[in-house]
Amino acid sequence: MDVGFIGLGQMGSAIALNLVKSGHRVVVYNRTRAKAEALASQGAEVAESMADACRCPVLITMLADDSAVEAAFFGEGNGLPALGRGTVHISMSTISVALSDRLAEAHRDAGQVYVAAPVFGRPEAAAAAKLFVVAAGPRQTLAHCQPLFDAIGQRTFVIGDKPSSANLVKLSGNFLLAAMIECLGEAFALARKGGIEPHLYLEILTNTLFSAPAYKTYGTIIANQQYEPAGFKMSLGLKDIRLALAAADALATPMPVASLVHDHFLSGVAQGAGDSDWSALARLAAGNAGL
Amino acid sequence: MDVGFIGLGQMGSAIALNLVKSGHRVVVYNRTRAKAEALASQGAEVAESMADACRCPVLITMLADDSAVEAAFFGEGNGLPALGRGTVHISMSTISVALSDRLAEAHRDAGQVYVAAPVFGRPEAAAAAKLFVVAAGPRQTLAHCQPLFDAIGQRTFVIGDKPSSANLVKLSGNFLLAAMIECLGEAFALARKGGIEPHLYLEILTNTLFSAPAYKTYGTIIANQQYEPAGFKMSLGLKDIRLALAAADALATPMPVASLVHDHFLSGVAQGAGDSDWSALARLAAGNAGL
Amino acid sequence: MDVGFIGLGQMGSAIALNLVKSGHRVVVYNRTRAKAEALASQGAEVAESMADACRCPVLITMLADDSAVEAAFFGEGNGLPALGRGTVHISMSTISVALSDRLAEAHRDAGQVYVAAPVFGRPEAAAAAKLFVVAAGPRQTLAHCQPLFDAIGQRTFVIGDKPSSANLVKLSGNFLLAAMIECLGEAFALARKGGIEPHLYLEILTNTLFSAPAYKTYGTIIANQQYEPAGFKMSLGLKDIRLALAAADALATPMPVASLVHDHFLSGVAQGAGDSDWSALARLAAGNAGL
Amino acid sequence: MDVGFIGLGQMGSAIALNLVKSGHRVVVYNRTRAKAEALASQGAEVAESMADACRCPVLITMLADDSAVEAAFFGEGNGLPALGRGTVHISMSTISVALSDRLAEAHRDAGQVYVAAPVFGRPEAAAAAKLFVVAAGPRQTLAHCQPLFDAIGQRTFVIGDKPSSANLVKLSGNFLLAAMIECLGEAFALARKGGIEPHLYLEILTNTLFSAPAYKTYGTIIANQQYEPAGFKMSLGLKDIRLALAAADALATPMPVASLVHDHFLSGVAQGAGDSDWSALARLAAGNAGL
Repeated sequence: MDVGFIGLGQMGSAIALNLVKSGHRVVVYNRTRAKAEALASQGAEVAESMADACRCPVLITMLADDSAVEAAFFGEGNGLPALGRGTVHISMSTISVALSDRLAEAHRDAGQVYVAAPVFGRPEAAAAAKLFVVAAGPRQTLAHCQPLFDAIGQRTFVIGDKPSSANLVKLSGNFLLAAMIECLGEAFALARKGGIEPHLYLEILTNTLFSAPAYKTYGTIIANQQYEPAGFKMSLGLKDIRLALAAADALATPMPVASLVHDHFLSGVAQGAGDSDWSALARLAAGNAGL
Repeated sequence: MDVGFIGLGQMGSAIALNLVKSGHRVVVYNRTRAKAEALASQGAEVAESMADACRCPVLITMLADDSAVEAAFFGEGNGLPALGRGTVHISMSTISVALSDRLAEAHRDAGQVYVAAPVFGRPEAAAAAKLFVVAAGPRQTLAHCQPLFDAIGQRTFVIGDKPSSANLVKLSGNFLLAAMIECLGEAFALARKGGIEPHLYLEILTNTLFSAPAYKTYGTIIANQQYEPAGFKMSLGLKDIRLALAAADALATPMPVASLVHDHFLSGVAQGAGDSDWSALARLAAGNAGL
Repeated sequence: MDVGFIGLGQMGSAIALNLVKSGHRVVVYNRTRAKAEALASQGAEVAESMADACRCPVLITMLADDSAVEAAFFGEGNGLPALGRGTVHISMSTISVALSDRLAEAHRDAGQVYVAAPVFGRPEAAAAAKLFVVAAGPRQTLAHCQPLFDAIGQRTFVIGDKPSSANLVKLSGNFLLAAMIECLGEAFALARKGGIEPHLYLEILTNTLFSAPAYKTYGTIIANQQYEPAGFKMSLGLKDIRLALAAADALATPMPVASLVHDHFLSGVAQGAGDSDWSALARLAAGNAGL
Repeated sequence: MDVGFIGLGQMGSAIALNLVKSGHRVVVYNRTRAKAEALASQGAEVAESMADACRCPVLITMLADDSAVEAAFFGEGNGLPALGRGTVHISMSTISVALSDRLAEAHRDAGQVYVAAPVFGRPEAAAAAKLFVVAAGPRQTLAHCQPLFDAIGQRTFVIGDKPSSANLVKLSGNFLLAAMIECLGEAFALARKGGIEPHLYLEILTNTLFSAPAYKTYGTIIANQQYEPAGFKMSLGLKDIRLALAAADALATPMPVASLVHDHFLSGVAQGAGDSDWSALARLAAGNAGL
């Protein structure tokens, strides 16, 4: 397929490269052009402008946050007008439910098709084409896009025809991760104050009740107390939990653990740990216990 | 070995039976004698009194809670005096850190040896000899008891020589389970209010980030909204989170998620759901969202 | 003075009337014209349009929420262009810090002067000209407006020259009220379950430690368990706590009690109590205790 | 009346002295005898032993906490046997509901009469005989003791005939104070980060909605950020909130703000602030906001 691709951060670059490798023609655009050119040698075409990338029948965007997506599609000189009627826009960014709804409406008004397809997985998984894709939008369009999802992920989950429901799943998943980190942080603080060796404690948890990779990944960071460099920054964790809480507020769903995690992230950021890994929640928990 | 065994609830009976099957001589005692006799046909000897069971060189206890253990070892007519010098007492009950410390001291004063060896696993795991044993006490004694642990579990984790540290691990593990249930409850409430099919949501979670058995077990109950009959009662969940908080308080470790879960359990019990499965935390979360 | 006045709800009507009584010429406008005409017989002039009201050298607005203010000043056909250079806009509405900042900038760009002057007090206090005015803006302008504040309130507090700081004080005050209600709700639930007569309990509190009017007002509602009709609706309480949390988030200030109160308001609204008095937080607390 | 008095801390000494001043014969006992002798010059008689003080027909105790009361009445060589049949024991200590119930039972079994009469007020109020007495017990006994209460306080509230209900009122009152401090702490942190002068902020609060003395007292400490020396230590605040939560747990009443305050006190103590004033909760809130 011919695919425009906007947003070449760590995740976006890995995804675009896998599309190229699978034989798709990929026209890449990034505000900082150097990142686009890095992909040129591997077979991607570099767009001269955002509008250029928008001329393909399918456009994939992988942008940092709501404001980047708003700038790209609703700001001055935005790309929306450059998209032809019938163009499919696949938004892979982790954005708010509200913005996803707004995009769906804007694209519908412009005769375009909007699909939300956020992904689960860290950069390593993106590079290995092992992402999990959570997709929602018109069923026929999703089927049409499946080869693209197959090129970048190990499995696709189709949520339904309302695009923002995929964003809701993504945000709730990030809430569950952050909440798990908070809980681990409290448990490790307790274990450490009780004189239990953290790595032994981790071994028990991950070999008995909690054998999921997420527990191993974050449990190891916490046992090692090594929160820098960040795999995923606390400031981004704060952003995502804000979006989860905004969605919950709009749906009148109290999420007390999400509120608590939000407050702890906020405290971490206020105290200067915004660039630490989001699992530094556990450092806050330890600090609150006087460790 | 010759083993006395006190406490033949669902877990205790399964454990005692596996000891018998492994060739140990097991003298069982239960306040309600019928439960002891049920094991007689399978090779256990039935003790006439608690003191009878206490005459073996190793005594295992698997009692319901702190007050049952207190009655057995510190109440009127308790079994402590019947234990000979050098007897090993292995306490598998989920009890408080404080009571475990008190037992350790009492046994030491009486020239006996105390080991704490609580287990992770539901009754099915106990029946299949697939428990995880978390043991702490004098290292030599633990080595001596290893055949017993092997007869009932799939793996033993040795925490150290302070018995109550095993109880702390057990309680913190139950905290992590209860906290996971709370978080799942909030996430499912959000997903349901957002129109996402709960079983699809569960499939995504357990096939991506959270592939641990605990998420599958409790996620399925929550997606099915089937909290009766209880696998583990909410009233017992409340008891365990109380013990975790008591340990945390004594160690000056704030555990805000544990506090939150405690309050929700308390609410569930106050509203009459004490006999529901502890995962009915998710029903409370749904109710708070107006579902 | 010549004063335009937009927004004649319960609070706005009482305030406008007191301005008339103090001898000011007041040109009133309300989307629903009937409310404006009700004031005509008492000496107010009824504006034909919002623009009419905007022609006075001072404009006071008392609107329901952010969206009403946004519609009036940033929406289609908004009143901003009708305000002449040098006009003073006094916003008494309880709005977000962010919107207040946006208004300040827009008015500055248009050569107008913006003052935020939210008030504390229920409708009875407004009718009796006993409000507390919390004002912020250019000091000279505030001095010029003082006769207006004197006409409606018993005391004016000047916060500083940044208008939104007055909104922050107002929102934090509403947080403190909501938090006090939550705490009273928990304490009354405990007392009732302990068999203590609620009115006796109230008498003790308000005659010893908590002799403030706020405790008497809300304690009486809670002791009587009479949450309808609402003096201030829970849905509005939810709105205000949302604004407080948004301000706190922007200032990186964790407010865990505000988060908790937000979740409880959300639960109340989700369960259909949005039109009850916001003190029905106490009914939720009682319900959580099984009362 | 002839009154024995045990426990001459800051509060107890002031209370005993006021009893002497009112013409009662007061026999004082304190573990550290020096404190008793200090009162001798002012007219109190010094008991040679606890048993001595117990010989009066009325015994008042004002001890530090549960363990001091347990030692005095249930420990080795305790005073209970020295109390004659018909003796009235008035316990003014802030103790747990459970211990108060236990005392009631023990005294009943011994043919004695037990009254709980905890007080509200800081040492200055005790010195000025301006305490509030919260009393519960047999109505006739309370009437009989009224002259004693009149000698030490400005007003007596009679809760009912179950002594521990007075303790429940006292503990819930301390919860409300601690919760108020927490809420003020969050609000001041927000105000300070928003650039609002703390003393101005305090002036607004205490002159509008929150004119109660408690807000003035603690608001001033918080605005001044002067948490040492302590008027009431954080470690004692933690003790009292623990007792409130224990009572709430026993009555199946979730108190989420109490849980939150408990966790913050615990954090304060873990970080070494146990000897600071309990209003240093506000310092924690400020610290969490990066101040």
